[in-house]
Amino acid sequence: MSDQPSAADEIMNGVYRALRAHGYADATMQDIADECSKSKSLLHYHYDTKEELLVAFLDHVITDSERRIELHADDPPAERLAQFLGWFVFEADAVDREAFHIALLELRTQGPFNERIREQLVRSDRLLRGTVADILASGIEAGVFRDVDVDETAALLVAAVDGARTRQITLSGDVDVGEGSIGGPDDGEDTTGGYDDADSPYTRTVAEATLRRVVEPLLAEGVEIPSLADGIAEMTPEDAGEREDAGEREDAGERGDAGERGDVDE
Amino acid sequence: MSDQPSAADEIMNGVYRALRAHGYADATMQDIADECSKSKSLLHYHYDTKEELLVAFLDHVITDSERRIELHADDPPAERLAQFLGWFVFEADAVDREAFHIALLELRTQGPFNERIREQLVRSDRLLRGTVADILASGIEAGVFRDVDVDETAALLVAAVDGARTRQITLSGDVDVGEGSIGGPDDGEDTTGGYDDADSPYTRTVAEATLRRVVEPLLAEGVEIPSLADGIAEMTPEDAGEREDAGEREDAGERGDAGERGDVDE
Repeated sequence: MSDQPSAADEIMNGVYRALRAHGYADATMQDIADECSKSKSLLHYHYDTKEELLVAFLDHVITDSERRIELHADDPPAERLAQFLGWFVFEADAVDREAFHIALLELRTQGPFNERIREQLVRSDRLLRGTVADILASGIEAGVFRDVDVDETAALLVAAVDGARTRQITLSGDVDVGEGSIGGPDDGEDTTGGYDDADSPYTRTVAEATLRRVVEPLLAEGVEIPSLADGIAEMTPEDAGEREDAGEREDAGERGDAGERGDVDE
Repeated sequence: MSDQPSAADEIMNGVYRALRAHGYADATMQDIADECSKSKSLLHYHYDTKEELLVAFLDHVITDSERRIELHADDPPAERLAQFLGWFVFEADAVDREAFHIALLELRTQGPFNERIREQLVRSDRLLRGTVADILASGIEAGVFRDVDVDETAALLVAAVDGARTRQITLSGDVDVGEGSIGGPDDGEDTTGGYDDADSPYTRTVAEATLRRVVEPLLAEGVEIPSLADGIAEMTPEDAGEREDAGEREDAGERGDAGERGDVDE
């Protein structure tokens, strides 16, 4: 295995950084080329249009998510549910992750108008709901969960954590770009912070509530409620080494970025 | 009371129609002027920039939501929760509502970069979470709900229905615009429909699941589970007459549009 990332991985990391820095609508092929130190003509050699490159990027992100889910496929079902919920949790000051998710949310708004983007969104939705449904089904079979409508429960869990993330990122004033940030944040009373009266970010509050309100009642008698903290730890960048072990990613130099991304999205 | 809508209401309905037709990024002041049969210079006389007009529009939508919530403030707490959940439910073929919400979602992605937009989003978030928390608190006081963390429950309910709506609209191929729709939908196997294997739209599935999984366990003994169908009916355009009674809206001619919008959104 080489320590050099492949050209394709380098380009995908460039897309990731360009989306974070410029957003979906404003990121240009030149921005992406700059972010991965390639020429714009090389990018165009591989990807005719920005749309094509972004579809390839969505494919890359979702494939990465499939891999991360697969890595935990043999963990106990209750722990896997906590991992799934924990995957969506991030702190209010996770500026890079927030900027990336805002760009992805912009991209998602293109779903109704662009069939190729929509195909990727549908694939991601099936991955997310399918993963939760599989975890539930295997837990029911193993006797650790009560019998329950797995598809309905999966839709609820996915909607809750996705909704919490959308609210956390759109209500945040932490992304330091644009006219809104002139004047400086935190000068006395914060009138624009969304969740400023809570001591927990939206994603964490909702993941914890989901675990106790929706997951706990599903547990069979005697099954211990899984730890959200453990679930978060299992799904965060620190397990990048584990991904490396899977032998699929060789971009050691870029791992910081790729690991930081580290979540399904859309 | 006059049957003529005020100029401000006409402009707001123009914004609504322009957002639906063109999306947030592409709607121009000219599009909005065309949609409300005003001159572009009149629009600019009232609103310096498109940003200013859109902030006024968000304010208008949220004020409308406050009014709709207020209309039901005296209903029994359990029914009010079903109304809240039902408010977010719409069918997969509600093309206009979907197009409007896609435009609002685009607008929401501007939150981190634009303080004035963010202020409105924060106001809407406080309205939504505050409404659910108030309903829960009054139900606990009345003895119809068990004692529960009202803020956490409110965050969960809001995230779930908002997340379901975002997923329903972004996964949908029903908005008939752009290259994605060329070729025609429903020609044989649908490979891009998001929730095509379900017989219920995402918002309905999640609202029902939330009602049974999160709300029902909160009910005190003997309190009947409220009907989602009734909740939906209470919050849909058919109650536009009720709004008219409140004496605040006089745009009878435009009511179809305004009523159709009929939901908080931000």
